[in-house]
Amino acid sequence: MSGAPDPAAARAFLAEFQARAAAAFEAFEPAARFRRDPWTRDGVGRGETRVLEDGETFEKAGANFSDVRGAALPPAASARHPELAGREFTAAGVSIVCHPRNPYAPTAHCNLRFFTAAGAAGGAGGAADGVWWFGGGFDLTPYYGFEEDARGWHAAARAACAPFGDGVYARFKAACDEYFYLPHRGETRGVGGLFFDDLNEWGFARTLDFARAAADAFLAAYGEIVERRRETPYGARERAWQKHRRGRYAEFNLLYDRGTLFGLQHGGRAESILMSLPPECGWGYGVRPEPGSPEAALAAEFLGARDW
Amino acid sequence: MSGAPDPAAARAFLAEFQARAAAAFEAFEPAARFRRDPWTRDGVGRGETRVLEDGETFEKAGANFSDVRGAALPPAASARHPELAGREFTAAGVSIVCHPRNPYAPTAHCNLRFFTAAGAAGGAGGAADGVWWFGGGFDLTPYYGFEEDARGWHAAARAACAPFGDGVYARFKAACDEYFYLPHRGETRGVGGLFFDDLNEWGFARTLDFARAAADAFLAAYGEIVERRRETPYGARERAWQKHRRGRYAEFNLLYDRGTLFGLQHGGRAESILMSLPPECGWGYGVRPEPGSPEAALAAEFLGARDW
Repeated sequence: MSGAPDPAAARAFLAEFQARAAAAFEAFEPAARFRRDPWTRDGVGRGETRVLEDGETFEKAGANFSDVRGAALPPAASARHPELAGREFTAAGVSIVCHPRNPYAPTAHCNLRFFTAAGAAGGAGGAADGVWWFGGGFDLTPYYGFEEDARGWHAAARAACAPFGDGVYARFKAACDEYFYLPHRGETRGVGGLFFDDLNEWGFARTLDFARAAADAFLAAYGEIVERRRETPYGARERAWQKHRRGRYAEFNLLYDRGTLFGLQHGGRAESILMSLPPECGWGYGVRPEPGSPEAALAAEFLGARDW
Repeated sequence: MSGAPDPAAARAFLAEFQARAAAAFEAFEPAARFRRDPWTRDGVGRGETRVLEDGETFEKAGANFSDVRGAALPPAASARHPELAGREFTAAGVSIVCHPRNPYAPTAHCNLRFFTAAGAAGGAGGAADGVWWFGGGFDLTPYYGFEEDARGWHAAARAACAPFGDGVYARFKAACDEYFYLPHRGETRGVGGLFFDDLNEWGFARTLDFARAAADAFLAAYGEIVERRRETPYGARERAWQKHRRGRYAEFNLLYDRGTLFGLQHGGRAESILMSLPPECGWGYGVRPEPGSPEAALAAEFLGARDW
């Protein structure tokens, strides 16, 4: 049955996605390579953090894979099904964050994860009496807004969703705008993308196909944008603005990101979880770009929910 | 009666403390001056944020005063008296954070605040049927550890507490070590200092005297340390280490600091609240100082609760 989960297939896809992403980003680098930092924890699981630092294109890029299990699913792990809290679970996932050096090239993030939770009476995670779901998505955080980039990004997201039904893109796009929002700043983290959780309504095989489509769309769309922006000339002004805006990225991840907070609160591997944080950033007081400048256009035109 | 609160006296002391602190920090600067950014909010109150940026000694220093009131005390405002939640309240406070430019000079923080909460049946905050308390303290975050600095800092803290009874320093010192702790890193934010909350057991006049003593100790002890370290020669290595360690400062403030989270969650003024964040910082992956280096000595010898 297409609805029966195949955790091994999900894990294999995720491990392969990590490798493909690392290869795709390395293709932009004449010399810098991802360092691999594999880890295991008795009774928890294993993972491999891959980080590239000080590249020509990417100042910092991370692609983390993890495959863990636990005796009690934390309440935060399933937003829509709190009744699953406390059950035995397995979780495999890939998290990718790229911080390009060039301020005209946007930061990008992609996460894909596969969960199983045991049936209410206990039993092996992923067994027929249990449940499974995929979660994740991708979003783009520009420091300078380009309509072409935002449209291309969302066109890829829309195309990835189209085979899975009318309204899928609209639903996951809206969820992304809602999730990646900084209430204390009154702005979104960036131009959004897709965000989904507790996804199992299409059966396993089809949902895995959707995760594959999301992974493909992310790599293709981001690669195009990086290629277009990475050699744009810039100076101290753009670099200062990039550092300032990266501070907002750190604010979101440390104040609001559920994966970050959940991981740190439950004894996760801090260095892997905080791989997402920017290589150089900073906070000035009351930074206000000149009206009419490209910097002012970012918040005014790009950092709110908008149809792309 | 010495126990009757005098909110006007508390407010006057706090406003004066802000001005004294700004003057003390400006004395280290040949040219840079604090910008004043006063604000008012209808029905909430007023405040004045003062920030000095790009000084010779201080890369960024902030001294914020606020004087607000509200219809319902948030639960987080009084750790020991959750039964006060929901009452009318007033809150006046000063928050100071200094980020020196020289990596050998430590970051310092001081907060002093005065709260009143109305009686259970309602009524004016601070009235005889209500309660009042002081909270706050100060702590020091070095990037390079110097025993002389940590001892001088704690000697000042101890001396400020001594007139208020045996065990006061030990109690507030331990609370500081406990509060300024990053569990995901297994380290304290710095070498600590004093931390107190819900303080009213000595009556109003004596507690205000204690707040004055804490303010005096902070300004004198920090001034001494800054004077001692601000001209120490340094290069790219020390600057990179400072930026790395400032990342931990941002982690603490955004992940754990109750005042920061409370302020942002309750619609506080984001720019004033986040004044504490460092002017330049960054996150590398798996940064590990060379064994035996001064950088390695920081965590090994200074970032845990220790008797100074």
